Amino acid sequence: MLEALKKEVYEANMLLPKYSLVTFTWGNVSGFDKESGYFVIKPSGVEYEALSPEDMVVVDLNCNKIEGKYNPSSDTKTHAELYKKWNDIGGVVHTHSPYATSWAQAGRSIPAYGTTHADYFYGPIPCLRCLTKEEIDAGYERNTGVLITDYFEGKDHIAMMAALCKNHGSFAWGKDPEEAVHTAVVLEECAKMAMWTEQINSHVEPAPQEVQDKHYYRKHGENAYYGQGH
Amino acid sequence: MLEALKKEVYEANMLLPKYSLVTFTWGNVSGFDKESGYFVIKPSGVEYEALSPEDMVVVDLNCNKIEGKYNPSSDTKTHAELYKKWNDIGGVVHTHSPYATSWAQAGRSIPAYGTTHADYFYGPIPCLRCLTKEEIDAGYERNTGVLITDYFEGKDHIAMMAALCKNHGSFAWGKDPEEAVHTAVVLEECAKMAMWTEQINSHVEPAPQEVQDKHYYRKHGENAYYGQGH
Amino acid sequence: MLEALKKEVYEANMLLPKYSLVTFTWGNVSGFDKESGYFVIKPSGVEYEALSPEDMVVVDLNCNKIEGKYNPSSDTKTHAELYKKWNDIGGVVHTHSPYATSWAQAGRSIPAYGTTHADYFYGPIPCLRCLTKEEIDAGYERNTGVLITDYFEGKDHIAMMAALCKNHGSFAWGKDPEEAVHTAVVLEECAKMAMWTEQINSHVEPAPQEVQDKHYYRKHGENAYYGQGH
Amino acid sequence: MLEALKKEVYEANMLLPKYSLVTFTWGNVSGFDKESGYFVIKPSGVEYEALSPEDMVVVDLNCNKIEGKYNPSSDTKTHAELYKKWNDIGGVVHTHSPYATSWAQAGRSIPAYGTTHADYFYGPIPCLRCLTKEEIDAGYERNTGVLITDYFEGKDHIAMMAALCKNHGSFAWGKDPEEAVHTAVVLEECAKMAMWTEQINSHVEPAPQEVQDKHYYRKHGENAYYGQGH
Repeated sequence: MLEALKKEVYEANMLLPKYSLVTFTWGNVSGFDKESGYFVIKPSGVEYEALSPEDMVVVDLNCNKIEGKYNPSSDTKTHAELYKKWNDIGGVVHTHSPYATSWAQAGRSIPAYGTTHADYFYGPIPCLRCLTKEEIDAGYERNTGVLITDYFEGKDHIAMMAALCKNHGSFAWGKDPEEAVHTAVVLEECAKMAMWTEQINSHVEPAPQEVQDKHYYRKHGENAYYGQGH
Repeated sequence: MLEALKKEVYEANMLLPKYSLVTFTWGNVSGFDKESGYFVIKPSGVEYEALSPEDMVVVDLNCNKIEGKYNPSSDTKTHAELYKKWNDIGGVVHTHSPYATSWAQAGRSIPAYGTTHADYFYGPIPCLRCLTKEEIDAGYERNTGVLITDYFEGKDHIAMMAALCKNHGSFAWGKDPEEAVHTAVVLEECAKMAMWTEQINSHVEPAPQEVQDKHYYRKHGENAYYGQGH
Repeated sequence: MLEALKKEVYEANMLLPKYSLVTFTWGNVSGFDKESGYFVIKPSGVEYEALSPEDMVVVDLNCNKIEGKYNPSSDTKTHAELYKKWNDIGGVVHTHSPYATSWAQAGRSIPAYGTTHADYFYGPIPCLRCLTKEEIDAGYERNTGVLITDYFEGKDHIAMMAALCKNHGSFAWGKDPEEAVHTAVVLEECAKMAMWTEQINSHVEPAPQEVQDKHYYRKHGENAYYGQGH
Repeated sequence: MLEALKKEVYEANMLLPKYSLVTFTWGNVSGFDKESGYFVIKPSGVEYEALSPEDMVVVDLNCNKIEGKYNPSSDTKTHAELYKKWNDIGGVVHTHSPYATSWAQAGRSIPAYGTTHADYFYGPIPCLRCLTKEEIDAGYERNTGVLITDYFEGKDHIAMMAALCKNHGSFAWGKDPEEAVHTAVVLEECAKMAMWTEQINSHVEPAPQEVQDKHYYRKHGENAYYGQGH
């Protein structure tokens, strides 16, 4: 079942080592199928080199396995929360990519220092708090998802398709699995340059708002004119 | 039309991923044809892996598309300003290469810390100011080009073939598209080493002027003796 | 003799250049054979490109060569000490991987800043002191091993499968040679991100204990649920 | 003439891009032939991808071209000074490798922070002063060589086979071209780790002398026991 989506999710997962976002098995991409309400996700702890499309696991939004020979990713419940809350996304990715994770470990949101950031993310990329002991014990992975969707309550999760989880790593999303990974790549690049920017100028300020606006709206919204689609 | 130049521009664009100057579609190279007064530029938002020489777009100096199935790069108007003002250049490149962009985000010109820099750039590589809201609204891409050429008014844009745009990225140029990319590679290398130099010695000073002069004039001008052309 | 183990040790050694943990011949992996009480180790100073499984050297726990045309690694006596003391390990690796070695040169243990660390290492990765002149003169390599096993006296060397030796490099271990190398790769990744984390936030604290516990026990012990083995 | 040495010098030059020590044409290796008193060096400004063994240039110690279709490297006179003064070396290399060059630009010698350094270099790797205007005008490249050999007057240039030239780059040497490049690779690795070491601990001290001695003499001198030659 869902063979096309399995292939899509498989290929998006394989982009993670290609773009140096993962070491070993650290990372997972999923994709959502609107019709069935199921999503497809990478199995837990299986090496990228050994993966094939048919290894992808199909689960429902309560994380019951519908099909697949492997256990789904241990982060499956986090993915499920995002799909449950946001019906306009079709892909989610979690990585420990080193620059973004270093910001998460440092407990800091990533400031919008330039147009590379503003082309994709509107405003600083938020670093969310750690879960409490109670939240961890009550359901670590599910509550990680709840933390993310709660944060975006009343905010635009399409203008900011990523979040850092303090002391942990990043989650990113998009309209499909490939866009989610694309977002994760940009996040890593922005995280790297933000670190270097502060090293070059420890008193640096975020880019002026009008520069951020110009670049964000050059690529997004009804007046966008970047690319071939306009 | 301009098949040879299209091939040249295509090949120069393909050097950007080869030298790790771009992620995804971030970056563009153009080349100018003196005879026709047209220039050839990368299409907007098309992946490097999918590009071919015939995808390059031909435009005139007012940025009207003369030939091509794609929209030209969203930065076309910046390129046009440089060609309009400087008739001794034949190639322009824009990238978000990470070290140079980090200096741009930090709002600092890159000091001439050594002979690697002085071999190519005479003096610090300037970081130009952000455009004002008025300039952005009146024509962001065109005014970016105006800012660059205005800065070089009365200065030698051949002894300094690159500039950083604050909170944005870099532009570099040369006698042809390949030399422009060559300059961008050197810029990135100098940006990297300048950052590390300051990390190793936070009180460092630029290289003595006589060392800078020696290296610059060893490679440029009538007394040059580096390479095979002398 | 021990042909299967030689192949395993050879392959684990070849992972060192694959994961960029070594330059030239700097690094060595060994594997222990419980039945014979011998272990197999890389020869000293032979280039990785020139290695083959039959070049691996068989030694006993007193470091007498049992079989092999080459001298064993100069660090053989350190490996032997670990196998003598700990009968639950089957592989040891020594490298000068650059991030871990920089922490060793800095004389600092690596704090547990996040879940990437906590997934593999329980608590900070210790940086052990330098040997004294007397210890060096009495037997540098053997006493390096003694220093490591003495440190772990009363501690759990399975919950912490690596140590830094001040001004030197790292040792890591595991149930077999491949797991030892796996640990060394994770160590390097954690060392890198810990350095960057402190650069992003100079006042950063280790991850909350409950977050460390959650991730460590999600992958280790009887309640583990990460991967396919549960 | 000197076909074997040309091949050796060619191959040593090709190691520079292999080990990421050079960008474009920045760097050159030479090899000395004791019998003829000539040396063989890379041509000036020719791309590595286009080089072949027969492109190597033969010069005498006064830098007269003996054979070759190209001009020799612009740094030829520096190489000549080293061969004139030191009859126990057979290879010299100059690079702008980024970490070593950053130390040179910072004007600092590289402290001996660990055994990776001590395995190859006895003591700090010296950063020599800039040439004066008079020295530059009187013969930049030759005086760079004089500066290096003058510095080593009364010191052991075999126990320290490299030097940094302030605001410039590095020179390294060895018994043959390959060893010279080997030294340059180790220099770059030590430069990188020394920078990171100081970032991790800004109050770090060099490795204890007894640790440096142990590692240096484990690999060098009559009591050496590292490798297969003892």
